[in-house]
Amino acid sequence: MADVAEKRAARRGRGARTSARRTRDFTMLPALRRGLPLTEPMDMEQVERIDAASMHILENVGVVFRDEIALADWKAAGAKVEGETVYLDRGLVRELIKTIPETFTYHARNPANNLPFGKDHAIFVPMTGAPYLRDLDDVRRNPTLEDLANFHKLSHMLPALHSSAHHIVEPYDHPISQRHLRITYSSMKHSDKTFMGMTTSPKNAEDVMEMCAVLFGADFMEDHPVATGNCNGNSPLVWDETMLGAMRAFCRKNQPVLCSPFVLGGANTPASVAPSVAQLNAEVLSALAYTQVIRKGCPAIYGHYLSTVSMKSGAPMAGTPEISLMNMMIGQMARFYGVPWRSSTNLGGAKTLDAQAGYESATTLMALQMAGTNYMWHAAGWNEAGMHCSMAKFVVDAEQCAMAYRMAEGIRWDDFDEAVAAVADIGPGGHYLGHEHTLANFQRAFFMPDLFDNNAFEQWVAEGGIDTNIRALNHARDLLKAYEEPTLDAGVNEALLDYIARREREIPAADALNQEY
Amino acid sequence: MADVAEKRAARRGRGARTSARRTRDFTMLPALRRGLPLTEPMDMEQVERIDAASMHILENVGVVFRDEIALADWKAAGAKVEGETVYLDRGLVRELIKTIPETFTYHARNPANNLPFGKDHAIFVPMTGAPYLRDLDDVRRNPTLEDLANFHKLSHMLPALHSSAHHIVEPYDHPISQRHLRITYSSMKHSDKTFMGMTTSPKNAEDVMEMCAVLFGADFMEDHPVATGNCNGNSPLVWDETMLGAMRAFCRKNQPVLCSPFVLGGANTPASVAPSVAQLNAEVLSALAYTQVIRKGCPAIYGHYLSTVSMKSGAPMAGTPEISLMNMMIGQMARFYGVPWRSSTNLGGAKTLDAQAGYESATTLMALQMAGTNYMWHAAGWNEAGMHCSMAKFVVDAEQCAMAYRMAEGIRWDDFDEAVAAVADIGPGGHYLGHEHTLANFQRAFFMPDLFDNNAFEQWVAEGGIDTNIRALNHARDLLKAYEEPTLDAGVNEALLDYIARREREIPAADALNQEY
Repeated sequence: MADVAEKRAARRGRGARTSARRTRDFTMLPALRRGLPLTEPMDMEQVERIDAASMHILENVGVVFRDEIALADWKAAGAKVEGETVYLDRGLVRELIKTIPETFTYHARNPANNLPFGKDHAIFVPMTGAPYLRDLDDVRRNPTLEDLANFHKLSHMLPALHSSAHHIVEPYDHPISQRHLRITYSSMKHSDKTFMGMTTSPKNAEDVMEMCAVLFGADFMEDHPVATGNCNGNSPLVWDETMLGAMRAFCRKNQPVLCSPFVLGGANTPASVAPSVAQLNAEVLSALAYTQVIRKGCPAIYGHYLSTVSMKSGAPMAGTPEISLMNMMIGQMARFYGVPWRSSTNLGGAKTLDAQAGYESATTLMALQMAGTNYMWHAAGWNEAGMHCSMAKFVVDAEQCAMAYRMAEGIRWDDFDEAVAAVADIGPGGHYLGHEHTLANFQRAFFMPDLFDNNAFEQWVAEGGIDTNIRALNHARDLLKAYEEPTLDAGVNEALLDYIARREREIPAADALNQEY
Repeated sequence: MADVAEKRAARRGRGARTSARRTRDFTMLPALRRGLPLTEPMDMEQVERIDAASMHILENVGVVFRDEIALADWKAAGAKVEGETVYLDRGLVRELIKTIPETFTYHARNPANNLPFGKDHAIFVPMTGAPYLRDLDDVRRNPTLEDLANFHKLSHMLPALHSSAHHIVEPYDHPISQRHLRITYSSMKHSDKTFMGMTTSPKNAEDVMEMCAVLFGADFMEDHPVATGNCNGNSPLVWDETMLGAMRAFCRKNQPVLCSPFVLGGANTPASVAPSVAQLNAEVLSALAYTQVIRKGCPAIYGHYLSTVSMKSGAPMAGTPEISLMNMMIGQMARFYGVPWRSSTNLGGAKTLDAQAGYESATTLMALQMAGTNYMWHAAGWNEAGMHCSMAKFVVDAEQCAMAYRMAEGIRWDDFDEAVAAVADIGPGGHYLGHEHTLANFQRAFFMPDLFDNNAFEQWVAEGGIDTNIRALNHARDLLKAYEEPTLDAGVNEALLDYIARREREIPAADALNQEY
């Protein structure tokens, strides 16, 4: 197991280390490297049964690509195309997806924040796409660019978050047709971690690629992943023009896309766990294969948004046992194909940061840790089925990610003999608080959450008797006060602003529906 | 995988089934039979390393038994005894523990509620020992016998709870010296599930055994486990007279005891995960071995209470990554010795049923599901590090147990081909809500929690905008109104009351410290 605490200390140097003891440590945790065994509920025969069912669907039911270019691409690639339906032979699918890299490295503008990715390596990425936020006063309202900047700042500061994502919240104070430019700039400016790129339209995705070229250089991007795009599918078995166009913009620049069917189990899949996975798997395979038609060898990520639907109300649910099981199964399928895997963690359907939000989020997070997800999206802030991002939940979730990170690293054995010798030193009936092994190890031995109160009731009352929501809001406020901007190179900053200014002159400030989830 | 829904329906018969559609179903879920693979973070070499370290501790550091009878028993069994310290040779330990049954069946007064136990079978048992409750009005106060009865009634009604336990809360309105009698009677009377027996003193434990003999017959108990006792150890490496005396009372009657060192990781164990497990394992082995000295072949359960301690405040924590890892390791050790395993789930350190309580509880519950715990104690109601039992949390936790149960059952494949055929019926872009497979399967397909609100924000506001705590209190109130007592045989009831009356005449109503946790 990697000794992350030591690695981080080494990266900061002795001076920083001394100072970190006095103040909070904002250094990003390296990409998680798993040391825990995976939970794999299917045997190989069952994995092959899912694979065979998915291939049967691809060959006989087909997938609709509502996009002229994709249909032409598929014909050229040798698929059978009838109207908008593409029938994909399993041989062709397997041939195409085998060029998807199993691992790659995400490059951030601060190289210390680069991230090895895929196989045993995993990263936590904040939620995105919320039309509302619960703000620092716990008021639920539409967000602004300033709110978005605050979430990007928190993403920068919270050690277990590996990305500033993109539109964590939708900034309603800027025209929707130009919003992607400001969102991208905000991700780039307020954090020097990796980020996501908007895929709300093909043109928007191209703008993101251009801005990435300004930040990283177009040549650099040719063989370095710097931003992730997400392309949602419409289950069952449909990919639309907006998403496919955005996908092409990313793939052509060799940037990774998440191929994510949007699954509401029971509504747009069969009302059953294993068959839902078979359909989802077919949908993902069709998109993964298409990434390789666009550009052979470009990185791509097995994705999905996955919920089960309440058959009482039609509402999507979070943290249900079937979601956990499906995630474990899907992880097996992604590994079967040798493709990195994205899922969604810390989901909740609660309207406030109450107990429901906690149960749902932790259940999802633990399931994803056991399932071995590589790209753990929506890992901070998600509540109300994604309708709002909560400032309070954002910081609580990020601490939970740090705890899940610690668990997934596994067990350390380096002090085993020394500590067992301490048992003899202390003997029956003693205590370890003053023992030299304890003094040398207590800071790293057991995770101590900042946001959870474990004091006695009387002390808790004396300190105001506040619940986790209030405690977390205070914490978020403190963090934002301590924020220091990782300043962009002045020339790069100017070039980005020039690009935005030009594009804002070109793009009418029209209103249109945001098509990304 | 067992089709539990069908089993339960079959047990109730057609009439009950029809009625269950109209009203809530209180039928107990059978003992969970796992269908998910276990999470085992150690390879066999590491398991043997823990075993060797534990045996080294037993042989060289020794274990203190503060009890004359136990010391004499150990001498007679061939152990080296110096003062109160017993040095246990690994050969002796292995020889003794090999007669502990790996599986057995718990017998309830309603045979429909009998529970196969051990190996793949697991049960959920409510929390016990809370000196406070948060009542139906969310007021934190000392509990009464009536409060205890209410918790026993809820235990009886909540399907995923397999036991009514014993003193879920401490009834302060009855003299402590006589309390165990009323607690035991309450467990027996308000529920026909299995229960726990008080071990607050050797005499009290004997009273419980006598009352069990009234309920089940002394002969029946000779080869049927009917009640579980818990014996806490004082880590590091001490067992006291009270606990050992109670242990003898249970073992002599062939009733299972949990051998539970009380571990505050970092305070009474080394500040490190693997060495803490080595010490805990030594402690458990010493007690398990002693159960077999008392009565060869009597059932016994590998146990522990396990927390990590905040090195900032000394407070015990819940849901930390190290607790999850230790549980996974301990499960491996228990299985290595072939002994059923008890751990604690749904733990929380929060002072209210807030988000912290949710995150902590769900993390612990998921870790225990993956670790393969057989006896999942404290599974409902635990908050404030066990200082209070919450009415609201009790019902929420019980629903979470039902969800974890569903997950741990694993994947069903019985409708796979039929449901994959539905994908072709529906085709790209359709929906499944009216399909015959959906209509036939929607009720069992995806768990729909009663206590979590997944409706839209507007609907939630229209319904009062209440959080999970209030929703759960309303639910608990409704359940208690619907309670129907599983009436005790009149003769048995009279005999139990006679026994209590006699013992209350004999036992002075003195006040003393309750020594069980």
